[in-house]
Amino acid sequence: MAGSTLAVVTAELESMYDPALAESWDAVGLVCGDPAQVVRRVLFAVDPVAAVVDEAVEWGADLIVAHHPLYLRGTTSVAATTFKGRVVHRLIKNDIALFTAHTNADVADPGVSDALAWAVGLIGPLRPLQPLPGDNRRGLGRIGELPERMPLREFAELAAKGLPPTAGPLRVAGDPGRMVRTIAVCGGAGDSLLGTALAARVDVFLTADLRHHPASEFMEAAANGDGPALIDAAHWATEWPWLADAAHRLTSKLGTKGTTVETRVSDKVTDAWTAVAQGPSGLDPLR
Amino acid sequence: MAGSTLAVVTAELESMYDPALAESWDAVGLVCGDPAQVVRRVLFAVDPVAAVVDEAVEWGADLIVAHHPLYLRGTTSVAATTFKGRVVHRLIKNDIALFTAHTNADVADPGVSDALAWAVGLIGPLRPLQPLPGDNRRGLGRIGELPERMPLREFAELAAKGLPPTAGPLRVAGDPGRMVRTIAVCGGAGDSLLGTALAARVDVFLTADLRHHPASEFMEAAANGDGPALIDAAHWATEWPWLADAAHRLTSKLGTKGTTVETRVSDKVTDAWTAVAQGPSGLDPLR
Amino acid sequence: MAGSTLAVVTAELESMYDPALAESWDAVGLVCGDPAQVVRRVLFAVDPVAAVVDEAVEWGADLIVAHHPLYLRGTTSVAATTFKGRVVHRLIKNDIALFTAHTNADVADPGVSDALAWAVGLIGPLRPLQPLPGDNRRGLGRIGELPERMPLREFAELAAKGLPPTAGPLRVAGDPGRMVRTIAVCGGAGDSLLGTALAARVDVFLTADLRHHPASEFMEAAANGDGPALIDAAHWATEWPWLADAAHRLTSKLGTKGTTVETRVSDKVTDAWTAVAQGPSGLDPLR
Amino acid sequence: MAGSTLAVVTAELESMYDPALAESWDAVGLVCGDPAQVVRRVLFAVDPVAAVVDEAVEWGADLIVAHHPLYLRGTTSVAATTFKGRVVHRLIKNDIALFTAHTNADVADPGVSDALAWAVGLIGPLRPLQPLPGDNRRGLGRIGELPERMPLREFAELAAKGLPPTAGPLRVAGDPGRMVRTIAVCGGAGDSLLGTALAARVDVFLTADLRHHPASEFMEAAANGDGPALIDAAHWATEWPWLADAAHRLTSKLGTKGTTVETRVSDKVTDAWTAVAQGPSGLDPLR
Amino acid sequence: MAGSTLAVVTAELESMYDPALAESWDAVGLVCGDPAQVVRRVLFAVDPVAAVVDEAVEWGADLIVAHHPLYLRGTTSVAATTFKGRVVHRLIKNDIALFTAHTNADVADPGVSDALAWAVGLIGPLRPLQPLPGDNRRGLGRIGELPERMPLREFAELAAKGLPPTAGPLRVAGDPGRMVRTIAVCGGAGDSLLGTALAARVDVFLTADLRHHPASEFMEAAANGDGPALIDAAHWATEWPWLADAAHRLTSKLGTKGTTVETRVSDKVTDAWTAVAQGPSGLDPLR
Amino acid sequence: MAGSTLAVVTAELESMYDPALAESWDAVGLVCGDPAQVVRRVLFAVDPVAAVVDEAVEWGADLIVAHHPLYLRGTTSVAATTFKGRVVHRLIKNDIALFTAHTNADVADPGVSDALAWAVGLIGPLRPLQPLPGDNRRGLGRIGELPERMPLREFAELAAKGLPPTAGPLRVAGDPGRMVRTIAVCGGAGDSLLGTALAARVDVFLTADLRHHPASEFMEAAANGDGPALIDAAHWATEWPWLADAAHRLTSKLGTKGTTVETRVSDKVTDAWTAVAQGPSGLDPLR
Repeated sequence: MAGSTLAVVTAELESMYDPALAESWDAVGLVCGDPAQVVRRVLFAVDPVAAVVDEAVEWGADLIVAHHPLYLRGTTSVAATTFKGRVVHRLIKNDIALFTAHTNADVADPGVSDALAWAVGLIGPLRPLQPLPGDNRRGLGRIGELPERMPLREFAELAAKGLPPTAGPLRVAGDPGRMVRTIAVCGGAGDSLLGTALAARVDVFLTADLRHHPASEFMEAAANGDGPALIDAAHWATEWPWLADAAHRLTSKLGTKGTTVETRVSDKVTDAWTAVAQGPSGLDPLR
Repeated sequence: MAGSTLAVVTAELESMYDPALAESWDAVGLVCGDPAQVVRRVLFAVDPVAAVVDEAVEWGADLIVAHHPLYLRGTTSVAATTFKGRVVHRLIKNDIALFTAHTNADVADPGVSDALAWAVGLIGPLRPLQPLPGDNRRGLGRIGELPERMPLREFAELAAKGLPPTAGPLRVAGDPGRMVRTIAVCGGAGDSLLGTALAARVDVFLTADLRHHPASEFMEAAANGDGPALIDAAHWATEWPWLADAAHRLTSKLGTKGTTVETRVSDKVTDAWTAVAQGPSGLDPLR
Repeated sequence: MAGSTLAVVTAELESMYDPALAESWDAVGLVCGDPAQVVRRVLFAVDPVAAVVDEAVEWGADLIVAHHPLYLRGTTSVAATTFKGRVVHRLIKNDIALFTAHTNADVADPGVSDALAWAVGLIGPLRPLQPLPGDNRRGLGRIGELPERMPLREFAELAAKGLPPTAGPLRVAGDPGRMVRTIAVCGGAGDSLLGTALAARVDVFLTADLRHHPASEFMEAAANGDGPALIDAAHWATEWPWLADAAHRLTSKLGTKGTTVETRVSDKVTDAWTAVAQGPSGLDPLR
Repeated sequence: MAGSTLAVVTAELESMYDPALAESWDAVGLVCGDPAQVVRRVLFAVDPVAAVVDEAVEWGADLIVAHHPLYLRGTTSVAATTFKGRVVHRLIKNDIALFTAHTNADVADPGVSDALAWAVGLIGPLRPLQPLPGDNRRGLGRIGELPERMPLREFAELAAKGLPPTAGPLRVAGDPGRMVRTIAVCGGAGDSLLGTALAARVDVFLTADLRHHPASEFMEAAANGDGPALIDAAHWATEWPWLADAAHRLTSKLGTKGTTVETRVSDKVTDAWTAVAQGPSGLDPLR
Repeated sequence: MAGSTLAVVTAELESMYDPALAESWDAVGLVCGDPAQVVRRVLFAVDPVAAVVDEAVEWGADLIVAHHPLYLRGTTSVAATTFKGRVVHRLIKNDIALFTAHTNADVADPGVSDALAWAVGLIGPLRPLQPLPGDNRRGLGRIGELPERMPLREFAELAAKGLPPTAGPLRVAGDPGRMVRTIAVCGGAGDSLLGTALAARVDVFLTADLRHHPASEFMEAAANGDGPALIDAAHWATEWPWLADAAHRLTSKLGTKGTTVETRVSDKVTDAWTAVAQGPSGLDPLR
Repeated sequence: MAGSTLAVVTAELESMYDPALAESWDAVGLVCGDPAQVVRRVLFAVDPVAAVVDEAVEWGADLIVAHHPLYLRGTTSVAATTFKGRVVHRLIKNDIALFTAHTNADVADPGVSDALAWAVGLIGPLRPLQPLPGDNRRGLGRIGELPERMPLREFAELAAKGLPPTAGPLRVAGDPGRMVRTIAVCGGAGDSLLGTALAARVDVFLTADLRHHPASEFMEAAANGDGPALIDAAHWATEWPWLADAAHRLTSKLGTKGTTVETRVSDKVTDAWTAVAQGPSGLDPLR
């Protein structure tokens, strides 16, 4: 049969991304929709924003699977006086359900950082940067190896090629010529893992949304004892590779049960940034 | 007389940047040094990091005036087992005092965001974006006007030229062709002012260290009702313009009292980022 | 014109029931609906429950004004997996907005307890039992007078006649023969006002949802010094009289602006209790 | 020997109702009295209020065993300026000790809800509604079976007959004709167990002190999926059956040690409510 | 008339020592006793301990006025299984009321530290060490002057003579030969005022219950800039002088209303310490 | 080799006094100094105060091992405007490191209270007064035996002789003639162990820094049932005996590794008290 009830699809998603593994502050699972409605088309996207809802409506999606929660903190109103309320109204009006897999997808095996690791060229077995207690396969971030040692400059170019293009380049901290091979990555904002990455003595830590103080303190600490280099990528770009992986796995799992859903990965860049500007000294590529 | 006691210099700095105006969580004032020591050379810098201490030692500085605290949270140890402890040891060994003016310099009149506003081309009277209660001249951020209306694209280029060069370009969110004139700026991480900037109905808000979620939520909210465009610059670059202003004012104030100190503004880029990398689609300048 | 935008109607409701006067823990205002939609029919009800939504759908209401919040604590999901989520889905699907006036209606002048006071026979000027600071007309509860002194027994019968019938009688604590005239009332659960009522030295305090311990401690304390008698009524019944008052006032206010909306007061008893049972008499159907 | 020291009697009571099982917020054990005094007469009562102290003084009791604490929250004064202070003064003046077994009696096996279950006609083995961790015999509430399936209406009448008469009837929520057999009961205020009762999929949950919002939310949730009916009884009435059970067990246990104490169960109704009133019928005296 | 009701006596005591001025954590006022009982004899004591109750019973006191609370933190039991419960039982059995004036007596004018100041030889107008906000006559501690400048050694001897004898000498920190005149005193444990005393630039701060760390940090801070010397006396000894003052004032105030009560100041030393021991001299009995 | 790196010495100290055993609120370990510097002379002292730094400078110490933290709560400034900042500056200027072993030394085996127990004459195996969970050799305080039963008076004299002289005698609570043998001791402020000592049914509890209320409540509680006597000694004196033990152990441990450091125990009395005064006898200089 083409399509399945929403209840069946969410059960499958929760078997892939166990909600019990989400952080206590997180808000995952079904945000709107009726468990009895039929789902034929599933759109995967990083952010449940207006442009993604547009795409879902146009394509005729029955369900959006998003990485980021619509409401991370609780709300007592979904009135269409805010952009989030407008999202809720449009989704319900168009019979489109919304499901979130966030920190439970981050720690899953395979999860968000596995897809990121593969995208930037890591090979071989990946292990969590910060494993769940008593679990050496699941956890936040991943550590893996490059096929061969190479200069930091070269790995940064490799990573830039592997990630989907966004406004603004990757930013790199550390000596461009240093040779690197063992790489830690964390999809999304990985600043909470900076200390872990430092202690793990990897060659590079690649993540997103790094601010001045954490990055500066990390590099000052790293300077004493040959600590890791740091690469900061666009938040959206580090999580997008996971969408195709999740879509593929959902299709397969439903397929083994005789159910077909059509999936699609949104390629709307939902980072806020749409352009860049630079001064007279110009933008220097990695030297 | 050439030089003055540290006590006299810090008193002058505190008359310029009243410590009572610092945020409750902040840590401003004298970090090390003896109030009785003589100060002849004062180095101004954004970050009290190793490279800045190197510069101070080489130049023979007696005092570093830094914008960022060395210890924002309290420590019970300054042992040279951490980079911060090493900074303390080197400073004390070399008779170099360290003084911080942080959020008290942010809200001062003139303060950090005034210097930033002037650097990116704003003219005319500046007013606080978030005034202190009952005070229309001091507060966080500044709002000012461009000499004439211009496309967002043009203002972004102007800002990029006015700020000191760093690795990575300014990032811009919003329609490059929209015409802008009223601009809000905030030196350093201004995400706490996003809501204020939205409510102030300015044309652009320029600040630093914006992460995916706050920027995305701001632009989604702005989309409904023609809200501000957003520009994200390097944290260091947005605060650096203030250093010269502060150095100049200190020299003047001490001069009127018959005291001379030599000042210098560090031009070390102390943002962590030293290079950028981009994929095949390449870096698109602002269109 | 028949009908008005939701924005106009909610602005009028908020001028009657100022949201700034709601308790800090409360959740009032628009819960769902689009400010631009047209409102022609407004249903007033105590509880935003399934039976009330049924009535709204059948009657073709565009707006429900409810006393109780749908979500008092914030939610991150409105999925139709809970009864509250089903309410949201049905409302949005049927273009019915939901607006809550809760503790702001309790303290308003006139508000919930004024309507209750009139319903149980109080006359003359009413004053708040617990006035807002510096405000002698608004606040929680009301104190008023009976037309003449009468035995507690007689006032209880009067109150029972004045309130809409529900399953279960009023419960009375105190000597049935004591003479009473000054009465305090509080619509809804008034246990937080027991101490205030005791100190106010009224003859009777009538409210709802009193539990064993507060009622027992109140009567033990009252026993020493001729304190008030106590009457416990059904929660729904004490708040229902306000609905007609609010509906009438909304119609009038919109009318003075040339707008007509049709209003209706739901008479569904939305207390959970549907029957009673007692030793001798057996199970009585709802009267 | 007739009588025993208070220390011996309280030790026996604590072996029946282990104080370690009381909730952390509770206040159980000896409230006043000297462990060395001799106890010959023990009065069992739900509430340590003035009327019960009167009865104890008249009968010549040496000890009151009460279910409810006199001071649930700590006090720094027992002056006879409050009704609780007057209780303390009268007890100490009359050499009457006071002992409380509250939540430790609720969870005991057998405890308060066992006696309630037997009173309303449940038979067969009873199991806790919310067992203590790792303990399938002790915990809050009890689940049991009726001898046969019967309409809800009939069970409510059975319960009303089995409980001691108080002012006001039992209140029932749910379809009176639905057939029921598996019943959960909880002596006293059982609202904290509503979620547990819903999940336990019993046919009826009978408890006391239910307020509008918890009862309404329970019934709305139950409406989807044939959840339990609800019965609300008088708080005092649901705990009173336990008194005789406790008295009997104390006598037996002391008897096996060669000690005799005389026990008595107070039949003062210490609920605050003394009468009811309703639309048609008027004020009924306490039956 | 000889004697008065307890209500009249406590009203007078509360006019002298306003309970509204007690610290929020304190527990002052009537602890046991009936406001209607007649009071003829009032015993004043620092601590409501067993020896003081003995004295009250022997003398036939109707009321004990104590400085220290019996229960500073709330209790849910006054059973005679603790020494505090035994105090309550003995007091109620013997019709002796207990009244506490603690931090409200500390800040009163005159209060505990006035009596202490006079006892150690201060003269002239006394002013609070830490005035209540907006009040220059009431507050914690007192500052006064010696009749003439004298060596610290001499003032310490004067203070030792002026205070009632206890086990253990006064302890002195600072140069015995330094000349002193302006003295701060605080009855009871004054460590919370150490910073205030340092800032007040007095010559000596005399108080009780000083521990190693606060005293050491005070003297280290004082060493830089000629800060105060420190004297530590017995807690009981610093508060005892107040008892006679309070007794005298109560008698006078009641006398002006035509009422006579007999007062007595307990001279039991209720500090725990009963002897001292030192290297050369051995164990000295209490002087 | 004479001397070792600081890193080696602190590693040895941490093997003796495991920092993981320090209380969560404590601040132990290296406070200043560079792990690479060479240590030849180590001064052991209770308090890191100015007089101890003087001694370290004069003797040419490379390291001070102190029992008390310099900063127990975190600081954001070590400027020489406070006595603690002056300590930091003098230490760093003179290449003297500072290391703290505080509550980790209290609970160690052997630790602070072992040395105290031996100093006051206890023999035989010592056991913790409050053992760490699941550890019968480590914990706070120690319980031991006197060689024979003796009057309390005699033990107090023995203790006074065994401890280093300070201003002020030991203070004793309890009947001087009672016979004692089992003694609990706790170096430093032991008031948190009063309840434990009472429950342990020892004959005497000797500790420091006891204030009026804890001591008074302890003796009132002890009065009922022949509880322990109490001895209060100078804080410094109870911890000083540990210094020699720690110095000896460090030397031995380094010796087995072929390293020699010279150690010295400071005999500066760093209690604040320098003299005493009493009624008859006048001001006694420090013995």
